[in-house]
Amino acid sequence: MKNSNSNPEKIYAAEKSRYDEFLKMNLSLDISRGKPSSEQLALSDGLLTALKSSNDCIGISDYRNYGFLDGIPEAKKLFSEFMGIDVDEIMILGNSSLNIMYDTLQKAMQFGIMGNEPLNKQGEIKWLCPVPGYDRHFSVTEEFGIKMINVPMTENGPDMDIVENYVNNDPSVKGIWCVPKYSNPQGIVYDDETVSRFAKLKPAAPDFRIYWDNAYMVHAFKQDLPILNLLKEAEKYGNADIVYMFGSTSKITYAGGGIAFMAASVNNLNDFRKHLSVQTIGYDKINQLMHVKFFNNVENIYKHMRKHADLLCPKFQVVMDTLQEELSDVASWYNPVGGYFVSCDLPEGTAKRTLELAKNAGVIFTPAGSTFPYKYDPADSNVRIAPSFPPVDELKLAMQVFCCCAKIAYYEKNI
Amino acid sequence: MKNSNSNPEKIYAAEKSRYDEFLKMNLSLDISRGKPSSEQLALSDGLLTALKSSNDCIGISDYRNYGFLDGIPEAKKLFSEFMGIDVDEIMILGNSSLNIMYDTLQKAMQFGIMGNEPLNKQGEIKWLCPVPGYDRHFSVTEEFGIKMINVPMTENGPDMDIVENYVNNDPSVKGIWCVPKYSNPQGIVYDDETVSRFAKLKPAAPDFRIYWDNAYMVHAFKQDLPILNLLKEAEKYGNADIVYMFGSTSKITYAGGGIAFMAASVNNLNDFRKHLSVQTIGYDKINQLMHVKFFNNVENIYKHMRKHADLLCPKFQVVMDTLQEELSDVASWYNPVGGYFVSCDLPEGTAKRTLELAKNAGVIFTPAGSTFPYKYDPADSNVRIAPSFPPVDELKLAMQVFCCCAKIAYYEKNI
Repeated sequence: MKNSNSNPEKIYAAEKSRYDEFLKMNLSLDISRGKPSSEQLALSDGLLTALKSSNDCIGISDYRNYGFLDGIPEAKKLFSEFMGIDVDEIMILGNSSLNIMYDTLQKAMQFGIMGNEPLNKQGEIKWLCPVPGYDRHFSVTEEFGIKMINVPMTENGPDMDIVENYVNNDPSVKGIWCVPKYSNPQGIVYDDETVSRFAKLKPAAPDFRIYWDNAYMVHAFKQDLPILNLLKEAEKYGNADIVYMFGSTSKITYAGGGIAFMAASVNNLNDFRKHLSVQTIGYDKINQLMHVKFFNNVENIYKHMRKHADLLCPKFQVVMDTLQEELSDVASWYNPVGGYFVSCDLPEGTAKRTLELAKNAGVIFTPAGSTFPYKYDPADSNVRIAPSFPPVDELKLAMQVFCCCAKIAYYEKNI
Repeated sequence: MKNSNSNPEKIYAAEKSRYDEFLKMNLSLDISRGKPSSEQLALSDGLLTALKSSNDCIGISDYRNYGFLDGIPEAKKLFSEFMGIDVDEIMILGNSSLNIMYDTLQKAMQFGIMGNEPLNKQGEIKWLCPVPGYDRHFSVTEEFGIKMINVPMTENGPDMDIVENYVNNDPSVKGIWCVPKYSNPQGIVYDDETVSRFAKLKPAAPDFRIYWDNAYMVHAFKQDLPILNLLKEAEKYGNADIVYMFGSTSKITYAGGGIAFMAASVNNLNDFRKHLSVQTIGYDKINQLMHVKFFNNVENIYKHMRKHADLLCPKFQVVMDTLQEELSDVASWYNPVGGYFVSCDLPEGTAKRTLELAKNAGVIFTPAGSTFPYKYDPADSNVRIAPSFPPVDELKLAMQVFCCCAKIAYYEKNI
């Protein structure tokens, strides 16, 4: 710890009295979820006035009426360019990419993928989960009773030796969750070799799919770091069918009020569409059209994201600075260059206790363990910090509480 | 047929030469689906300007952000009043009630209802299908491999002797599709006795549910015909858990761009919510709020529906008049007092041939058989006519073609 020349008992006592001061402040701060701030949301208020009259709602058809099961052509064009894929490789669906992922897996469970037996009927199946990862991904696979296997993250993406070993040899492995760019929670960007190795997988299971959740694909803080396009790479190796890509504008426009899309091979989309046409007549095309009129082209999406970055950067800086100042001796973390989170590894066995102390002082974090399948972090070490929502001064205070609690939790075990 | 004193050969020849005239017109008319007309859609363009700025989007929270899994309180209040139920008995979900029904059944298949075994694991299960009925309902149950059983409709609703016999004695019967008001396609309004008998069912299966699709609950042409509220009736008999009610604004505001809801007992909603919270973070609350601001109260919804009725009435009148004029001797139909369809029963064995002739003359109807499970109408008699979309003059022409084709199909078999 800092002040390592000092007496540990003295530091511990100092942090405890600092904690008592925090308690007296009756704080109520929440940095648990990756929610955009009001200032960020206001960047997209142009959506509200993008369509004003009947005429505005008419594209190649009247989009106030039924039709266009998998999206309006204008939205398919814009977001296929955005995703770097062909226009027949995208479907624009509802408002939530999580919901698309859920539905995709549910259909695989119930009906099977492209003529394969339903996963429901295949006995025990397994799923690879790079850790730390996104809690809502893990909840989906847990809901379906799928056995989740931890795969450690490296600074370039999931450990591909482990991934290849599982996928290429075990036919009960049916999928893997990936957030390839500014990953949740570490902010890691998969390097070219990692993407390329994904594209070249030779799955033992014919119904194995990579669930490529590109939630943060344009969410750089400074300069964009392009990554290889997995679908295009996989096509090179005749492997296009092993890829499902997902994205949404939830962290581009309105959170939960945006539009969400799925990109995949024509084979995969045809297979999905067959069931989708039974499930619904179509999604909200007015919202799709609002987004198209608001952005008009991909370049404008990138320009828009610069404004988000300007609002987010100072907040991430506060987190980095406070961690560096207070916990550099004992904790480790990635300095993210994009995305929505900071992942901090505390000394083993202290994450739960740290967040319990923080909660008692009125500061809420994503519960310890959430970044692992079954909410179980074997090292009880990882904490996800979500700096986007609170104002800078509140965030600074929350981080000070966090660091104070982390130190107390450490000294409780080490004195 | 009309002109019954005439020589059948002469009439047949006359209709055939009339048909030849239609062929020369190179028609392209579509009255296959219940789509609102552009004039009807324009009634709701106030939605587009209901929210203009950041401030407009803030209710008890900022609705541009995540949260409110099952709907914003303002929408729950408005639409629970609209449905005549308590505010904790409703969930406001996406844009499509069909999608909610699909998801509800899918969850019953995969996870089971309220602690019961998943339907997927219960062997052959059955579903009651009042006929004629809504094709998309039947497609959903067919998709899940559920055995569908035809139940004849009477002028007061499904034949309840048959319904009671199945539901109360056969534990493999898990559900029934109902469109209780201005039913699709007949426009029948379930009478009080029918609703009451539904409310008093004593299902042999603990996981039997009535899928009560109240798609047309405020869609009267003249005076509203109130029906008993099934959920409230069922509550009287301690039977609230056997009811799922569904509705949407797809035929109130924008078709596919409205909001959809599910009403059920708190037990049922809690059970559904458990899985919903894994499936999504929430639905588009901006659209929910637009609807709340546009309507403000239930009375305004009824006022709004009068405007729809004014646009729809002349169209239904054309259908009624043409059928009466041309087919009164041989066909039968209901005169609907609300809803979106006219159901016409042609002479047995002539529906397919009639619509084939119409198609060849450029007039598209919902395919014969669609109003029955497995698209199989045992009598090959029923045709669903959807008058809402085309202008009156086109509709008149389409109906003339229809009647001409019906007569040709009849005489082909009866000369």
